[in-house]
Amino acid sequence: MRHGGCVYEFGKDKVIDYSSNINPIRYNADLKSIKDAYIYPDIEYRELKDAVSEYLGCNRDNVVVGNGAVEIIDAFVSAFKRVVVFIPCFSEYVDRARIRGCNVVRFKLDDNFNIDLNRIYDLEKDDLLILGNPNNPTGYRIEEEVLKKIYKICRERDAYLLLDEAFYEFSCDYDSIQLFKDKQGVAVIRAATKFFSLPGIRLGYAYVSSEIKQRIEELLLPWNVNVFANAFALKFLRDKEYIRLSKEFIEEERRYMILELEKIEGIVVYKTQANFILIRLLKHNEETIFKRMLQKGILIRKCSSFEGLDNRYIRIAIKDRENNKKFLQAFREALYD
Amino acid sequence: MRHGGCVYEFGKDKVIDYSSNINPIRYNADLKSIKDAYIYPDIEYRELKDAVSEYLGCNRDNVVVGNGAVEIIDAFVSAFKRVVVFIPCFSEYVDRARIRGCNVVRFKLDDNFNIDLNRIYDLEKDDLLILGNPNNPTGYRIEEEVLKKIYKICRERDAYLLLDEAFYEFSCDYDSIQLFKDKQGVAVIRAATKFFSLPGIRLGYAYVSSEIKQRIEELLLPWNVNVFANAFALKFLRDKEYIRLSKEFIEEERRYMILELEKIEGIVVYKTQANFILIRLLKHNEETIFKRMLQKGILIRKCSSFEGLDNRYIRIAIKDRENNKKFLQAFREALYD
Repeated sequence: MRHGGCVYEFGKDKVIDYSSNINPIRYNADLKSIKDAYIYPDIEYRELKDAVSEYLGCNRDNVVVGNGAVEIIDAFVSAFKRVVVFIPCFSEYVDRARIRGCNVVRFKLDDNFNIDLNRIYDLEKDDLLILGNPNNPTGYRIEEEVLKKIYKICRERDAYLLLDEAFYEFSCDYDSIQLFKDKQGVAVIRAATKFFSLPGIRLGYAYVSSEIKQRIEELLLPWNVNVFANAFALKFLRDKEYIRLSKEFIEEERRYMILELEKIEGIVVYKTQANFILIRLLKHNEETIFKRMLQKGILIRKCSSFEGLDNRYIRIAIKDRENNKKFLQAFREALYD
Repeated sequence: MRHGGCVYEFGKDKVIDYSSNINPIRYNADLKSIKDAYIYPDIEYRELKDAVSEYLGCNRDNVVVGNGAVEIIDAFVSAFKRVVVFIPCFSEYVDRARIRGCNVVRFKLDDNFNIDLNRIYDLEKDDLLILGNPNNPTGYRIEEEVLKKIYKICRERDAYLLLDEAFYEFSCDYDSIQLFKDKQGVAVIRAATKFFSLPGIRLGYAYVSSEIKQRIEELLLPWNVNVFANAFALKFLRDKEYIRLSKEFIEEERRYMILELEKIEGIVVYKTQANFILIRLLKHNEETIFKRMLQKGILIRKCSSFEGLDNRYIRIAIKDRENNKKFLQAFREALYD
């Protein structure tokens, strides 16, 4: 299983999906308002880019849009010859790089899943460094001062910094686009998938520094964003109330989940700024817990498919209180069975 | 203007769009039936591939699906080092090949826009030959015996034949997937965009011969087809009545349009098996006629942006009788002004 969310294998109405990381507050996408499936989307995505640049708070000329964040990742690895990642990380960084014929350099995160700055000094000219921020599956968000330092080292070495911030809105600290919006050698990807709870519509977008923007834009496909994603985004990107409520909701539930999980013996719970939690199992392997949870109707993410993790790790989503209580009860039983 | 359908530039409710080539009979896509924007599409697209293979009449293991036909074209040019086209043709063959770093060899179609078979003998090992069938913007469909011969020569030279059949359903002769479904070295792309009148949903699919299928599949992005395209396709691919009616409708209107256009002096009308018609202007250039038609509220496709055509060519869509009459009236006036 390369990714979470494989509910199709288990019957998508039969399990509670704790394996993928979607905002539990559903954005109410009014499908009846969509009338333009019969014409092409605007190949220039004028209105969409206006809304995205307004939402991100950056110049419209620096905005690209993609068929999910993964298309933008794919465009970046297509534009570089060598890609550097810190594992464990989202598997598509390495997969897309390999498929596009890049050399891939893997450094390991340290035991607490922090980035070892010494490794950043190993970057070479024209390398593409990809960092998840918060990182998937660890949930760790790079501290602001550390990120500034990483960027500085990248610039000194003429390497390019690509931040994958698909989970940005769930964190609650600095805004990296505000840090970097006038800078060269850096891009920040964000997405509708996770925070706006709409993985099915397929929409990613990014701030891309100007010197490379045109090359990335041409690598993206024409008409890459469908009309539904286009139409919904014009609304949800401007829905300040939904955004505020979702952030508060996740912060509250994250606090609750971490507090409750830390009471449980036999596991290590990792610090997270995302809407998911990485857990190390001290007494079981992932398969045992996966099976026991599935019997209770809950799908979790086994993590041995992440390079850099072994079969003692699982990743779980953060949902609403009712489901989180169900999860915690089932998880305690699964661990103590 | 790289493509037709740029209605966004002129006000999309203010012009009748004769510049893009969409089936005028709208498929009635029931948006209210879609409930799954909140979950990921099936990364394996099991149900969708079942429906596509059933519709195409080929083995499910040979089916790939894409974010429009253009993603599949992009995957193919990414898998080859040299691409061969006959111009004029759909500009994305050359554009995507260039973007993906391919060498591009252009041969010219003859004066009647037929393929010169002598050029096919110039193919080399591992070339990718891309042919539109029917071809855009000429509307010409390769005759069955000629196509078989082209395929045979490709095999002898160890070149790969990629047919872009985005307009297949508008033609009414042989089925190339039935010709090639057990063969190696060949793929046939089709799409929902044109025939099912849903360019906004973004869905292409293809038969791909087995020896290269896995490589093409991995080049396509994960979750490349959105949930709307997925859900609609399960219905429209099985809607035999819509398919039959649309074919009859276009055949009838094509006959009518050609008949009426051939009565008009000062133009050459090219034979077409698609839902569009290429016209050579004998007394005007494209810009004059484009402007005059736009003043009458009709958008047409100037063709000088197609390599191999100059500013004496325009391309027009075939729509319903009412609009076609409006078009013909306006066109006569524009020519004789």
